Amino acid sequence: MNSVKRCCIMNRTVLQTILVRQFQTSTRRLVELTSVRYPNVKRGQYGIVQNSDIATFERLLPGRVLTDSLEGYNTDWLKTCRGASQVVLRPKSTEEVSGILKYCNEKKLAVVPQGGNTGLVGGSVPVFDEIVISTQLMNKIISLDEISGTLVCQAGCVLASIEDYLSNYKLTIPIDLGAKGSCHIGGNVATNAGGVRLLRYGSLHGNVLGLEAVLADGEVMDCLSTLRKDNTGYDLKQLFIGSEGTLGIITAVSLNCPQKPQTVSVAFLGCQSFQTVLDVFKESRHRLGEVLSAFEFMDSQSMTLVKENLKLASPIEDFPYYVLIETSGSNGSHDEEKLNDFLEHVMGSGLVEDGTVATELTKIQHIWSMRERLAEGLLHDGYCYKYDVSLPLSSFYGLVEAMRERLGAMVTRVVGYGHVGDGNLHLNLTSPEYSTEVMDKIEPFLYDWVAERKGSISAEHGLGFKKREFIYHSKSKSAVVLMKQIKKTFDPNMILNPYKVLPDF
Amino acid sequence: MNSVKRCCIMNRTVLQTILVRQFQTSTRRLVELTSVRYPNVKRGQYGIVQNSDIATFERLLPGRVLTDSLEGYNTDWLKTCRGASQVVLRPKSTEEVSGILKYCNEKKLAVVPQGGNTGLVGGSVPVFDEIVISTQLMNKIISLDEISGTLVCQAGCVLASIEDYLSNYKLTIPIDLGAKGSCHIGGNVATNAGGVRLLRYGSLHGNVLGLEAVLADGEVMDCLSTLRKDNTGYDLKQLFIGSEGTLGIITAVSLNCPQKPQTVSVAFLGCQSFQTVLDVFKESRHRLGEVLSAFEFMDSQSMTLVKENLKLASPIEDFPYYVLIETSGSNGSHDEEKLNDFLEHVMGSGLVEDGTVATELTKIQHIWSMRERLAEGLLHDGYCYKYDVSLPLSSFYGLVEAMRERLGAMVTRVVGYGHVGDGNLHLNLTSPEYSTEVMDKIEPFLYDWVAERKGSISAEHGLGFKKREFIYHSKSKSAVVLMKQIKKTFDPNMILNPYKVLPDF
Repeated sequence: MNSVKRCCIMNRTVLQTILVRQFQTSTRRLVELTSVRYPNVKRGQYGIVQNSDIATFERLLPGRVLTDSLEGYNTDWLKTCRGASQVVLRPKSTEEVSGILKYCNEKKLAVVPQGGNTGLVGGSVPVFDEIVISTQLMNKIISLDEISGTLVCQAGCVLASIEDYLSNYKLTIPIDLGAKGSCHIGGNVATNAGGVRLLRYGSLHGNVLGLEAVLADGEVMDCLSTLRKDNTGYDLKQLFIGSEGTLGIITAVSLNCPQKPQTVSVAFLGCQSFQTVLDVFKESRHRLGEVLSAFEFMDSQSMTLVKENLKLASPIEDFPYYVLIETSGSNGSHDEEKLNDFLEHVMGSGLVEDGTVATELTKIQHIWSMRERLAEGLLHDGYCYKYDVSLPLSSFYGLVEAMRERLGAMVTRVVGYGHVGDGNLHLNLTSPEYSTEVMDKIEPFLYDWVAERKGSISAEHGLGFKKREFIYHSKSKSAVVLMKQIKKTFDPNMILNPYKVLPDF
Repeated sequence: MNSVKRCCIMNRTVLQTILVRQFQTSTRRLVELTSVRYPNVKRGQYGIVQNSDIATFERLLPGRVLTDSLEGYNTDWLKTCRGASQVVLRPKSTEEVSGILKYCNEKKLAVVPQGGNTGLVGGSVPVFDEIVISTQLMNKIISLDEISGTLVCQAGCVLASIEDYLSNYKLTIPIDLGAKGSCHIGGNVATNAGGVRLLRYGSLHGNVLGLEAVLADGEVMDCLSTLRKDNTGYDLKQLFIGSEGTLGIITAVSLNCPQKPQTVSVAFLGCQSFQTVLDVFKESRHRLGEVLSAFEFMDSQSMTLVKENLKLASPIEDFPYYVLIETSGSNGSHDEEKLNDFLEHVMGSGLVEDGTVATELTKIQHIWSMRERLAEGLLHDGYCYKYDVSLPLSSFYGLVEAMRERLGAMVTRVVGYGHVGDGNLHLNLTSPEYSTEVMDKIEPFLYDWVAERKGSISAEHGLGFKKREFIYHSKSKSAVVLMKQIKKTFDPNMILNPYKVLPDF
């Protein structure tokens, strides 16, 4: 399996390189400035970067202050947001981040922390001229305890590199997502990224054992524990997980890393109704038990997209819904027996009419690529209206149907896919280019629909810049009041990633 | 297995009843008042409960205001702390808790929330005359989604009752501990309880999907999400997990419940050195993989205690160290094969010289009872100085040896046991009765020892009243400053569980 996983990583890294190249090409056609597209958002009362500030930064970070060719840092991966920052800082150490923030706080200069810049809600790029603090050069592994499986590393380590490193020690990382070839672990933690392994290993709130963050005034909050249990006072690190850089800049993390599975199998099944998808899910929980590691779903429109835009062929005939099930465990023959028992049951009972099972590298890769390259495929259509919601399973697919009916021919397509196992739907609508008319038809209708069913308007992508105004659709007023109080406590000058997560005060 | 688990629960419930009876008898010999034993702790500037207050409480909670026979509510389970509260309130609903807190906040009356009162650090009983708010009558299951495995219930549900309820739906609860027969889930969450299943299912930070809490001013913070993923704003609920009732009173929780294992096996092994225990742990992670559900250890002094004080016989001959390994999974023959392979390896390689495996009810129960009844056995010696620390595995047992050498004949015994899998050592010293001399010899020496090795002075029991002054041994000054700011933000009048968790402001 070592070779399987390594190839998967290679594959994604290659993919990422292609995407970055596409991205670089596309940013030549400059994306509309965020300040122009969203004229209602007003710049805060922050300082404007002066030459003297640049000189200070140069003293703090000799040779690591960029002031030219900043398009890549100013524009998000989806090409939907563009800021106008004049300076990018590339610290190598916690002390350097501390020095930068201390200075910025005194001068009231706003900053935006940036990892791999793979976020999907405009959280990792400036809205106006915020200074970009990139974690690109903070990419050192600090320590690994092989017995307990505890890794400590700097925030700028690329997710796939960490996985690669861990595989040498028969360990793996409890988080996996399409952008792994370029996203940074610090960004993953700051955005509480989910991904395909959450079903098996749980969220980052359970897997991050400790973290170090620099607060707005430069104070270093050292909660970089490597202990699995520590019940001494409030668990402050939890506040930073998912705060999207608005409470502090994460500089290092400590992670609980599980044993690397010895074997992986993937089944790809066709279902006639969404209810069948749910029934298959229930059976998989019951029969695959502890070896179930992913339960993903995609609809027929997703499959059409994959065929049309990525030229990938489905391994089974046409169905309204498809299910991807992954098992991984410590004993290949046991896992295979469980998977066979499960398949016999779902096919014998008529729940599933057609399916394929992959145990070899190429086939596993092919099946996963249909699911993981969907985000890439959508970009081929032009502009992508991207939504990532949690819903009770009973309402899960209803949202896709409602949007399809509502938008009709106004959009190129409406596709639904996601992590059924986590109640997490990725809903995407595409059109040749950005259209205010389409946007007004989608929002706030979609958020209202989700809120009425007690879902979450952002399951794993966060609120960033684009969704912060809709926070009340998922959180109560009293909760948001508390969040604002916490923000004020941690960052009185509000210099950390302004215009993100919370509505204006 | 249904019958196995049910019997285990019954067994523990019976045990709990015996313990409660012992406890009730013992409280007749009244424990020294906390205010007398700790003369340096001064009562805050709080109101004193008047008859008019009692009348108001009676209007809010007709027939559920207790003012007589309050010893059980005033005294902790270990009989080491005793408060002097004059009134116990027993609300049934969130609205009632809200009404109580609104009133208490206005009158500046201090309160202490209390669940099953099984805490070990004096966190769940009054220090002076704080009003006890008991969750005893808040014991309703609110909802269960069988497909996703999401349970919502009131905070006063007893842990074993929840497990019992879930077993009807082939589900289980991700937390298990000795006090399950009487501890409340609200208390478990408030103290971030760990227990024997943490190795398998992770901490409550990952398993609590949502919670509802009443803030100091009576405001209800509704974060009772049933979604596995929700990335909208700061994850406020995380702050309440482990805050020991000092930021709000948890009134309901939403939990992610895994599939109930179909089979359980237990192996009990003898080891000649602590290094061997660690080697066996490493092999178990590798060879048992996803079916490993507990890895517990106890030293020979623990075994002697079990034999002398509880009349339990060891199933294997004498060894310096013992290891209890539990596997649980969805396929009995697979689990058995994995366990056999593991045992063949550790015995074949000479790591383990003797051991026994249990798959039948009685034997499993017997083996677990040796580990789970240790806390009870310790009470037979008289007074128990109880410590619960996290340590890097390389220093894990060194603390027991250091304390044994330091205390010598001053104590009856020094025993070490705990969750090796989580790096969590339970260190206990006993003497016929409380001795200041012994205490001064233990503290702060023990905390210094742990801090020097970057451990945690409280792995799972919390800080409560007894350990709050030692928080700096595990948390940095800047972290504690932030905690105090958060406390002030959430509870400006400081009425919620005063004298707990944080040192005086």
